[in-house]
Formats: sequence, structure tokens, C-alpha cells
Amino acid sequence: MNRDIQLDTIDGGITAPAGFIAGGIHAKIRKKKPDLAILASTVPASVAGVFTTNKAQAAPILVSKIQVKRSPLCSAVVVNSGNANACTGERGLNDAWAMVRTTAAALNLPEEQVLVSSTGVIGQYLPIDNVLQGITDLAPDLNVEGAHEAALAIMTTDTYHKELAVRFPLGGVTVTIGSMAKGSGMIAPNMATMLGFVTTDAAISNDVLQKMLVSANGKSFNRISVDGDTSTNDMVLVMANGLAGNAPIVEGSPEYDQFTDALEYVLITLAKMIARDGEGATKLIEVVVTGAASEADATAAARSVANSNLVKTAVHGEDANWGRIITAVGYSGIDFDPDLVSISLNELPVLLPNYEIVLDEEKAKVVLANENIVITIDLNQGEHRANFWTCDLTKEYVHINASYRS
Amino acid sequence: MNRDIQLDTIDGGITAPAGFIAGGIHAKIRKKKPDLAILASTVPASVAGVFTTNKAQAAPILVSKIQVKRSPLCSAVVVNSGNANACTGERGLNDAWAMVRTTAAALNLPEEQVLVSSTGVIGQYLPIDNVLQGITDLAPDLNVEGAHEAALAIMTTDTYHKELAVRFPLGGVTVTIGSMAKGSGMIAPNMATMLGFVTTDAAISNDVLQKMLVSANGKSFNRISVDGDTSTNDMVLVMANGLAGNAPIVEGSPEYDQFTDALEYVLITLAKMIARDGEGATKLIEVVVTGAASEADATAAARSVANSNLVKTAVHGEDANWGRIITAVGYSGIDFDPDLVSISLNELPVLLPNYEIVLDEEKAKVVLANENIVITIDLNQGEHRANFWTCDLTKEYVHINASYRS
Repeated sequence: MNRDIQLDTIDGGITAPAGFIAGGIHAKIRKKKPDLAILASTVPASVAGVFTTNKAQAAPILVSKIQVKRSPLCSAVVVNSGNANACTGERGLNDAWAMVRTTAAALNLPEEQVLVSSTGVIGQYLPIDNVLQGITDLAPDLNVEGAHEAALAIMTTDTYHKELAVRFPLGGVTVTIGSMAKGSGMIAPNMATMLGFVTTDAAISNDVLQKMLVSANGKSFNRISVDGDTSTNDMVLVMANGLAGNAPIVEGSPEYDQFTDALEYVLITLAKMIARDGEGATKLIEVVVTGAASEADATAAARSVANSNLVKTAVHGEDANWGRIITAVGYSGIDFDPDLVSISLNELPVLLPNYEIVLDEEKAKVVLANENIVITIDLNQGEHRANFWTCDLTKEYVHINASYRS
Repeated sequence: MNRDIQLDTIDGGITAPAGFIAGGIHAKIRKKKPDLAILASTVPASVAGVFTTNKAQAAPILVSKIQVKRSPLCSAVVVNSGNANACTGERGLNDAWAMVRTTAAALNLPEEQVLVSSTGVIGQYLPIDNVLQGITDLAPDLNVEGAHEAALAIMTTDTYHKELAVRFPLGGVTVTIGSMAKGSGMIAPNMATMLGFVTTDAAISNDVLQKMLVSANGKSFNRISVDGDTSTNDMVLVMANGLAGNAPIVEGSPEYDQFTDALEYVLITLAKMIARDGEGATKLIEVVVTGAASEADATAAARSVANSNLVKTAVHGEDANWGRIITAVGYSGIDFDPDLVSISLNELPVLLPNYEIVLDEEKAKVVLANENIVITIDLNQGEHRANFWTCDLTKEYVHINASYRS
């Protein structure tokens, strides 16, 4: 963030802003845990969305992309876990549309105001009767206390739920942003099996909201990586229902910058929760590249380090293996002079320019015992910087992914 | 390979062709195992080399690149394991030159006819006194039986040595190609901590040899991946000393094609040995993409699948997880229609176009119990194809790399 804003973190998730209701239920898509959530606004909301760039797009992605073009307003989103409804062809599309229609009917909404999202196993058909029955059962029970239930219902291999709500003054009123996400494995730059849902009572038009989301998403969900894979199903949606009573935010205003900063803060916080909860992870790793010739270079270098299995296993082993770090920068494709590079781990310098090795193994051991590891790489080539978040690579990651049919 | 040639695999490695001698020794760079090898030709040989594309290049890479430009002839290569002499600045360069000079002196060769190569831990200085003493001790003992000793001395985390020799008729004479390689972790497209040394008694000029190597390398070492990382130290060298007595091979001749095919066969065989010996690996995976709109598309798609941690863990778990395979193609950056894709595992069809799932879980279980897994992806977009080799991702990989300072 570039500017100072006064954010208060408050209790609650997606129902913290005025006018939002939600809930979660076990619709028998999975064996035991809650697997179906609905999020709704009591008044139609502006909507913005970013969707996976994977060429193989799941049915709910294709349907929701049509819906956001069809109507500038969104009143509800239905989300299931346990089945991605991806690589399911015509039948999968029909199932996704059935989820939309059933949700619209159950909530008495125009069909074009409903979006759909799925996550879970790829290449299997939804048990659609269970799903539709679940929607019908859940819809009457949506309420302002239902955020947490919804956050639990969208989890897959996540080991904890991911929610955040913040409140801040904006143009003379107080606005609230609520959010939930699911993440874990397959997270990567350009989004991966991750879903993010953001609600706000601020008044913002679709176009303005979309610009804000693209900007904030570029600094958050597109800067995390668990295993470099991107999925068929990722999406981040923002709904803004205007109940806070502010004048609609226009581009170029102070309120525009303030809201974008707040949104960026929320998305970065969720992104870090997701990276930390990568499958089998024991540490959150932040890669910071400074002194790059351009922001693109900084991002490419940071991504390359964050995606390196060798760096991620070294951090897991609490090994100050700066050689693997500079190697990953070396194959990132950017132009730089390795002789100028300095590297530090949680602010402990380990390498100075001209390959002056100042690594103190004892001090490094203490630093690397931390759960949060910040790898800072100064390229000494320019003024640009970028952050990237990932997690360590563990035997548990292999265990989970050798046995989980995702 | 595009053409038929009659290759006989014979015993021996780099000393199989006439005029080559070699040896290996424990020079106390590592605690126990042999760690220094010298390969020499009794008559000066043409030389060709390909070197890592990593921006952070180790001292021996910088020195050997100078040497191949300096002289068209090469008579010896000195190689050490246990220390990469990478990220070691001025001192590292001095050490690499000292290895060259000492080898030249010990073998009574012009300095410009000696190349140097290193592999092992990054960012530590060579115990140069030990290294130079080792060279002096080893040089008088080089002999035609020394190939195997040399192949053992260049290994790092390799679990087996990698050697191959073949013999075939060429332009009225019989020529021999010998080879050795080391691989294991960090192997990736565009080469990674992998070294390859090829010898032949065929007569080939430097320029012609270089073209052959670049072509064969593109189909072999640049088509393998263990963990997506590329290293500071990779190189592949070919020495051709002409003792077979053939007329020097010229471009456009049948002999040119025949030798290139043989070289490609040798490099592909070594590449597969390297992929199969990836750290902790239990299976060799071959990814075959067919029906691509271009060879570049085929290669990009195959690389993306081969680099996917999720595909590699699924194969390890013997899980017919075709969803992860199509997902990896989806984020490879190529343009294709997912509806047209078919996928098979060791020739067992699991997915047909229009997402027709024909996976038989019982049959897949049998097929995936094999040590060699071929994943074939037909994009049905065109006529082009590419192969890529990798290995499964295991807990043992994490174990090795969380504890090994490479």
C-alpha cells in the first residue's frame, strides 16, 4: 500500500458489511464436512470478478463469466466444495446452470443476478440432486451470523478457515469490507485452486470496482505460490451493495485510493493465510526482491525463488542455502549482474555484493527456526521491488498429494 | 530419431573410443567418495560444448567458455564433484584457472587445450590445495580402463553411475561414441546441475560438432526435469579425436545425419538415466504430447506437465489423476481446445475428446504400478509432437533437499 489509511480489523467475515447474509450446509457432496455455501446481499450489489487464466476452465467459471457480463448486479453466489465441476463438458455446464437457477428460485431473485463457484476434485460429475436439494434447504436459513458457516463450507484441504473483516472511514461515512477465502495446494501466480469472496457496503460502480479488484489482486492473490500449478476453478469476486451511504466512489478521488488500499490489505492478508496453509506447510515464506531494474523484473525474480522446490525444501530444513536462492534468480529470465546481489534472511545478511559471504551459521539457525521467513534479495540494479509469498515444501505435501484425487 | 541406424551398445564409457584415457581419485574435496576425474585424448580433439543458461554462472563455466573459444582443440577435461565453485567471485575464477594450469602441466599439454568442470555445493571455496594435489596424483595414472572410475568420481547425489558406449558403421569405418553423465536433483529444461561428457573417435570439425550437439541436446538434456530448477554449473562437452579414420563429416551428408542420430540416442539414454535418478525418485515418467499445432506448443505443454508437482506426486501415489494433467496443459501458455484432448497412461486411454472419461480404475492401478510411466496427451490440434522426461516427487526428495547443502 502506498498511502496511510486507518483500518480497524473487526470480528466477522463476509456478513460484516450491512446487508449481507450467508450460510453453509452439508449437501452430501463430500462424506462429512459442510460443502455448500450461499452468500447473498439483501439489495442488488455491483459485482467485479477475476477468473483463472487456465485454458481448461471449469463449468462454474464459464457460467459466472457469462453472468457478470449479463447483469451489472449480483445478489447471490452459490459455492460448493468437494467437486470442481471441471472437465465435465456439456453435462457440467447444465449442472452449473441448474445451481444458478435453483438458487435464484429459492431466494426469489432474477436468474442473471446469481453467480456460481466450485472447488474440489476434477473430472467427476456433481451429485446434482444433492447439490440442488442442499441449495433449497439452505436458502431460507441465510442470516447475518452465517459467515463462518459459509467459510467452513468452502474449505477443501485447508487446515483452517480464512476470514477477515475491516472497517474504515470513507468520504464521511464508515464502510466495512468482509471476506472469506479457500486455498491450500495448487495455489500459484495467476491464481490457483483458490476462491476469494469479498463483500462491502460501500457504493461503487461495477467498472470502478473491477479496476480496484484487478489492481489489488495483482499485488496479492497473483503473488502467492504453493506449488506453481494454477487451477481450472479459481475466482475472486467482490460485491458492493452501497448500504453504507457514501457517494459512489469515482476514479481519481481520494476515496478511490483509500478503498483500493483497504481492498489490497484484505486480499494480501487472505493471500498470506493461503500461502501459510499450503498443503503440508510449516512456514510462511515471503520473498522480497528490491533494487530491480523494473517491477516486472522484481516480480519475475521473486516468483522464481518462491516457486523453487530447492529453496522451499531448504527453508523447511532451516538451511541458509543462499546458493539455491541466487540460482533461482539466475534462471528467472531477468537480466542482472550476480556480482551485485546481496541476500538476507529475516534481516540477517548472508551474502553481500562481489560474493562476499557473511553467513553466520549459528545466527542463521536461530533466524530460520522462525515460522515466518523473509528472504530479501537486493539486485542493486535499480529502484523497483516486489513481494511474493509461498510456503515450505514438506514430506506432508507429498503425502497429501500422492493420495488426494484433486 | 528420424532415421534408421544400426547401433551396437558395447561395454565401457568415455574410454571406449580409440585414444581416450581417464581416471578418478579421492582428492579430499568430499569426505569419502572419489571426487576428481580427468578425461584426456592422446591426440588433440575437436570440441563442442553447451553451457547453462543461468545468469549466475560458476567459475568453471566461465573458464571453459573462454577455453573453447580460445582453441579449436581440446586434449583434457578436469572435473570435480563435492563443490561447484559457483558464486565464489574472483577467488573462484583463480581456482578454476589453477585447475586448468595444473592439469595442463601434469599432462604436458598446452593450457588452452584443457577445460574444467565442477559440481556440488554452491558458495563455498574449493579446498584448492587438495584439488591440485589430486590432479598431480591422478594425471600419471590415466588409462583406457579408467572410464568407470571417472564416472564414479563425478557423481553427487546420484544413486548410480551413468555411462554408455555405442559403436556403428560410418562412411566405411566403424566409429565409437563413449559417454558419462551425472545428474540427480535440480535437473530441468535448459540443463541443471548436470554434466555430460561425450567422446568419439570420429573425425568431425568443431563447427560441425557444435551443430550436432546443439541439435541432439535440444532433444535430450533440455527435455528432462527433476524439480524445474536450472543450475549454475551445467555443461555438456563432446570431444572428437578422429582416430577412427573416417573422412571428416560434412554438413548435409548421410554421415552427418547418422552421427547426429547416434549422438541423440546417446544423450537421450543418458537423459533418461538422469531423470529416473532424480532425488528420491521411484519412477521414470515420459510425457508425450502429440497433435500439437507446433513443436514449440508440444514442448511447452510437455514441459508444463513434467514440471507439475501435482502430476509428479499423483504418479508417485499411482493415482490416475488426469485432471491434474489437463490442468498443467491448461496453464502451459499454449492455445488449445480442452474439449479435443485425449489422455492415456501407458497406452491405457483414460480421457477421450469431449471429456468422455473412460478411466477404468482397476486397469489404471495395474498400469501405474509400473516403474516406467508414459503419459500421452493428444491435443488433436495439429501434427507436432514432443517428449519430455521426469520422475515422481517423493518424501525422499524433500528429505534429501531439506538436509543437503547444494
